[in-house]
Amino acid sequence: MPTFTVADLAHRVGADVLGDPDRPLSGVASLEVAGPEDLSFFAREALRAAVHGTRAGAVLTPRSFDASGVPFSVLRVDDPQLSFARIVGLFHPEPEPPPGIHPSARVDEGARIGANVSLGPAVVVEDGARIGRGTWLGPGTLVGRGARIGVDCRLGHAVSILHRVEIGDRVRVHAGARIGTDGFGYVEGPEGAHKVPQVGGCVIGDDVEIGANCTIDRGALDDTWIGERTKLDNLVHVGHNVRIGSDCLVAAHVGIAGSSEIGAGTQFGGQAGVAGHLTIGAGARIAGQTGVIQDVAPGAELGGTPARPRRSWLKEAAHLGRLPNLFRRVARLERRVKARESERPTRREAADASDDGTA
Amino acid sequence: MPTFTVADLAHRVGADVLGDPDRPLSGVASLEVAGPEDLSFFAREALRAAVHGTRAGAVLTPRSFDASGVPFSVLRVDDPQLSFARIVGLFHPEPEPPPGIHPSARVDEGARIGANVSLGPAVVVEDGARIGRGTWLGPGTLVGRGARIGVDCRLGHAVSILHRVEIGDRVRVHAGARIGTDGFGYVEGPEGAHKVPQVGGCVIGDDVEIGANCTIDRGALDDTWIGERTKLDNLVHVGHNVRIGSDCLVAAHVGIAGSSEIGAGTQFGGQAGVAGHLTIGAGARIAGQTGVIQDVAPGAELGGTPARPRRSWLKEAAHLGRLPNLFRRVARLERRVKARESERPTRREAADASDDGTA
Amino acid sequence: MPTFTVADLAHRVGADVLGDPDRPLSGVASLEVAGPEDLSFFAREALRAAVHGTRAGAVLTPRSFDASGVPFSVLRVDDPQLSFARIVGLFHPEPEPPPGIHPSARVDEGARIGANVSLGPAVVVEDGARIGRGTWLGPGTLVGRGARIGVDCRLGHAVSILHRVEIGDRVRVHAGARIGTDGFGYVEGPEGAHKVPQVGGCVIGDDVEIGANCTIDRGALDDTWIGERTKLDNLVHVGHNVRIGSDCLVAAHVGIAGSSEIGAGTQFGGQAGVAGHLTIGAGARIAGQTGVIQDVAPGAELGGTPARPRRSWLKEAAHLGRLPNLFRRVARLERRVKARESERPTRREAADASDDGTA
Repeated sequence: MPTFTVADLAHRVGADVLGDPDRPLSGVASLEVAGPEDLSFFAREALRAAVHGTRAGAVLTPRSFDASGVPFSVLRVDDPQLSFARIVGLFHPEPEPPPGIHPSARVDEGARIGANVSLGPAVVVEDGARIGRGTWLGPGTLVGRGARIGVDCRLGHAVSILHRVEIGDRVRVHAGARIGTDGFGYVEGPEGAHKVPQVGGCVIGDDVEIGANCTIDRGALDDTWIGERTKLDNLVHVGHNVRIGSDCLVAAHVGIAGSSEIGAGTQFGGQAGVAGHLTIGAGARIAGQTGVIQDVAPGAELGGTPARPRRSWLKEAAHLGRLPNLFRRVARLERRVKARESERPTRREAADASDDGTA
Repeated sequence: MPTFTVADLAHRVGADVLGDPDRPLSGVASLEVAGPEDLSFFAREALRAAVHGTRAGAVLTPRSFDASGVPFSVLRVDDPQLSFARIVGLFHPEPEPPPGIHPSARVDEGARIGANVSLGPAVVVEDGARIGRGTWLGPGTLVGRGARIGVDCRLGHAVSILHRVEIGDRVRVHAGARIGTDGFGYVEGPEGAHKVPQVGGCVIGDDVEIGANCTIDRGALDDTWIGERTKLDNLVHVGHNVRIGSDCLVAAHVGIAGSSEIGAGTQFGGQAGVAGHLTIGAGARIAGQTGVIQDVAPGAELGGTPARPRRSWLKEAAHLGRLPNLFRRVARLERRVKARESERPTRREAADASDDGTA
Repeated sequence: MPTFTVADLAHRVGADVLGDPDRPLSGVASLEVAGPEDLSFFAREALRAAVHGTRAGAVLTPRSFDASGVPFSVLRVDDPQLSFARIVGLFHPEPEPPPGIHPSARVDEGARIGANVSLGPAVVVEDGARIGRGTWLGPGTLVGRGARIGVDCRLGHAVSILHRVEIGDRVRVHAGARIGTDGFGYVEGPEGAHKVPQVGGCVIGDDVEIGANCTIDRGALDDTWIGERTKLDNLVHVGHNVRIGSDCLVAAHVGIAGSSEIGAGTQFGGQAGVAGHLTIGAGARIAGQTGVIQDVAPGAELGGTPARPRRSWLKEAAHLGRLPNLFRRVARLERRVKARESERPTRREAADASDDGTA
């Protein structure tokens, strides 16, 4: 593993150094497990105890960090986590595949492959496909007819890029993701569900990342579309004709049904779902397991199924635990009111239910 | 892309033509994006404005459509969407793989391959497997020992058809689907969970479609079974010994636990789940994210977790938002009743909680 | 298929035999479908009718089973299901792949392959990888640089074992599972989400089973970790730095977000989710579709979203159906109390809402 001095690293991220600038560092680690040759970082107040107990040789901290008496070299920066993210790759450069086309890869004569492309064993590139320079394709990956992949992309093992899918530059697609599969489109016909041929495209913007075993369907007629810099975690499903804006974060197991539009900068917690033909405004925050069945205003924070404002949903949840008791209280009130009324009864009283909440 | 006249297409779907029958059409598109050489369709009232603003050369409409003054050729049919679905494939024939067995495919001597079968690169067909005529297997797909696949099936990239699985005719299986994997079966033993060998089969009926990255487990002893014409969207899980009837529609991320039986014509929204050993009656409608933990009557419409009638579930959800206020109202009532009672108190009053709903 | 006598099988599982010990048995089946040459088992009272109607030649029963008058041979044991699980494999030995390295497999010179390893077609084993003796790898499976796999493991079709992942002994990984993929880690930077390089490892304990199309991310810095004998069903997602203890059972579609720790012996129902950075105590029982957003005590039984004690959750669910009626009852009480009060009104009454629960 490469070695850097504290001063080297400080220079790269614009850090002020306190302590020994010549200390050699050969790795990165969390505060808890770092040793004297490791760089670590302190970004959350919750780690205050950890930073004072760490054995790390150097720590990235906020500018305001009080470094008096700490045994490690301190690199003060504006954003320790971001600086750390930038440094990690220096110590752990991405495992680089052998350049060139593996002998067992099958590249159609009608395909065009850019410079410095790496195609692993058993890769298949079909007629009319184009792969930009510097892009890597893992073993067993398929690039279908007429598909286009931009420059410096990283596709993992056994990825499916189906016919006519278009992928931008610097896109990462992890193992087993399927892009451009048929959407779930049927019309009721005389012999049961009649398949609607799915003939639209699928366009993935620059700097998108798509997690392992995700499925992104092609459009039925028009295109499915994922905007620049949007990140999908693993096992996410994106239905046909969905349009996801730029800079979204979509956690694992999220499902977005056909033709919904997701505004830029929206964030989804894991296992959330969006029904079809909806519009989610930009910057919405959708909690995990939320079930969205109506349009969502920009910036809204939602939870629950059906989705409602996150705050109300949490408040309701807190009240739910006391619901059995509320039933008992209402039953008591009914008895008490009746007791008063029996002194001189009014109309309606007989009609009241006597449900006392016993489940 | 092929070209057809309006009259050609009208003939194929039994349409009445209004406007120029000789107009050439070279594509299909939605009303919004269609141009003068495209056919489109008008099926939902919500698209009324779009149909009057479309630039499409021709539009499939209901028989009742008032065509006065529209600039496009009109093809009036009984079901515009169904007719459109039938026409789409004429313009976009399915991408056909090269016929025959790719040199890098590995076919065991004991396997039998029908006429006009296409096996892509790196396909593996094991001993005793049989593949019917006209079936296509995408690159990297596996057909295990003794598995049988019917005629005219379409299997995508990297599909797993494991040993002894039986697949009917005209079945479509999308990239990365796994059929015949081991079920989740353990018995508590002295050294922890003891695996129960999964030795049953898996039978997929004719005209079934199975989405990308689905997982369908083989039976533990007997068979897992999916009925004719049933369609599974992506990332669906079907546990061991599940029996799904014919003509079901199962949306993405649905999970059906072991040994449950799903009646014919049942429909599941995305991310719904069914616990094990249940019976879902024919024609049930299960909303997205529903959690079914009891048997379901035929034709029932359910939502929520635990599942309940869809209507009650939506009504409850509407009331939930007013639950905090209800707590406040009950607390006020208690004070008011107490105020009256203090004029002449009765038993029990001291026992009442004073919970006023503040979360 | 091999044949055994009743006495043979009884000897292997310590059974007392009633009836003919020499009866030949050539298969195993459930009580409903078994024939005279099959062994079946009776473990649940619910199958009492089935056991008396079965055509099975022999049945494993509890020690207490009253065998008077039954036509089949009886094998009385302590745990019929466990004994049956042990016997199934005798009749259905696991399909064994051809030994050795398939000519189309690509094994780097720097990899080490143990004795009796089977590598299927198109398997890729990269530099520095080690595979223990007796391990089988299905077609198209990848073992990345520096990854280690123990002895007697069974990896299915198209599995991804990425660089530096460590897998114990006797581990089973089903088709399409991805182990060691990048975690979902980004830091907000000036040009949008900045990827945090994921450089930790992934350690899978002995006797673990991982279902089809699961995704298990490598750690960001430290390791993701799955303890001995833990079993994951299909399509499970395990985020980066998650630590799952030994002997857990995790049903299909469960998602566990980054850095959460799951105690030993925990069980998850299908589609349950755990938010990030939580601690789940040992032996917890998490119902299907539960959404865990807080730490969980050891042995707790939870349901609902947000998760709460399973019992309260079910009780609330039962009350929810009567919530609309409760709103009506409270509105009636308000009217009745008001009627009394109008005889001599007090303060506050005007302030009360008149919401009568009509959705």
